[in-house]
Amino acid sequence: MKHEGTLIVVSGFSGAGKGTLMKELVKTYNNYALSVSMTTRNPRPGEVEGESYFFVTKEEFEDQIEKNGLLEHACYCENYYGTPRSYVEKQVKQGKDVILEIEIQGALKIKEKYPTAVLLFVMPPSAKELRRRLIGRGTETVEVIDKRLSRACEEAEGIEEYDYIIINDKLEECVCQLHEIIRAAHYTIPRNTEFIEKIRGELKEFAKGEK
Amino acid sequence: MKHEGTLIVVSGFSGAGKGTLMKELVKTYNNYALSVSMTTRNPRPGEVEGESYFFVTKEEFEDQIEKNGLLEHACYCENYYGTPRSYVEKQVKQGKDVILEIEIQGALKIKEKYPTAVLLFVMPPSAKELRRRLIGRGTETVEVIDKRLSRACEEAEGIEEYDYIIINDKLEECVCQLHEIIRAAHYTIPRNTEFIEKIRGELKEFAKGEK
Repeated sequence: MKHEGTLIVVSGFSGAGKGTLMKELVKTYNNYALSVSMTTRNPRPGEVEGESYFFVTKEEFEDQIEKNGLLEHACYCENYYGTPRSYVEKQVKQGKDVILEIEIQGALKIKEKYPTAVLLFVMPPSAKELRRRLIGRGTETVEVIDKRLSRACEEAEGIEEYDYIIINDKLEECVCQLHEIIRAAHYTIPRNTEFIEKIRGELKEFAKGEK
Repeated sequence: MKHEGTLIVVSGFSGAGKGTLMKELVKTYNNYALSVSMTTRNPRPGEVEGESYFFVTKEEFEDQIEKNGLLEHACYCENYYGTPRSYVEKQVKQGKDVILEIEIQGALKIKEKYPTAVLLFVMPPSAKELRRRLIGRGTETVEVIDKRLSRACEEAEGIEEYDYIIINDKLEECVCQLHEIIRAAHYTIPRNTEFIEKIRGELKEFAKGEK
């Protein structure tokens, strides 16, 4: 088996509970590293620099783009979001499965560059529940909530680009499902080409030997 | 989530240990049903009618083909092998994940008819180990072993048609991996189209309501 880690891209509607899910996954199992995105948006109450996001100015962000310091970046709700490259590459080399919480534009860019990346989409159990969660958060204005819901409507059109969906109903079950999916990804054919070639070679040697 | 079971096709070189692996899986976890194939080959010592295989004559087999009683069938090492349809369909409807232990020709036919089927290929840790296991079985002549090894060489060319490979080194680990892979298959996009359409519809209703 290959010993490099896998890139796991997690997307989902704002309010689907991705953040909580990811934190719980990393807490429950070893072998995961959570990539911290860089953004130009304002911190929400309770968000911590370097943990929730790296909060930077527009100028700092554009400087990172120029330096090729980002694995991918995209604009969403008029703010930049991006994935710092060095942390991800280091963790993958050490065999960690690295989780990137990014939206669809970024997800597709990652899949293009890293075809063995696994793309997951987190869904709420229903649209009603999604709205309830967004309102319950209490940190967004009605206008922002409406914007996020109509954005969810657009995002839903891209779900077929993903490999798996997870319905975030019960947190514990969901964490377990996520772990199973990521484990399974290690056994796909494209991630095991080296081993397959080795066995093919050995079998051919046997076939020659017999004659 | 969909409540119908999934078809799980397991192939692998003769001697890779598929049979033991499948039995252990069914014993360890609920929710699996093992399909029993029909064959015209002779029983090996210890094989049980209706459990290892349904052993039938060539005439009986061809009668089943005509009656459309088989999900797929193929010829391998001059013997017929096939999957009786009724058992599989009944189990899937009851929500069981049904395991079919069949070779590549059959596997591809199943995938064509049932695109959400999961195709697994069981590998020995090395070709040397494969030969050791075939010899250790003590039930086959040297000619048959050589034939099986050269058949393995051909089969190895088709591995890219499969979804996952499992390296059968330690039985317990392997059973656990197999279970993870099958669980993960339940969360793929094509298996959840109904749910996705439901959410899309709900979100569109919200968007309309806002205006």
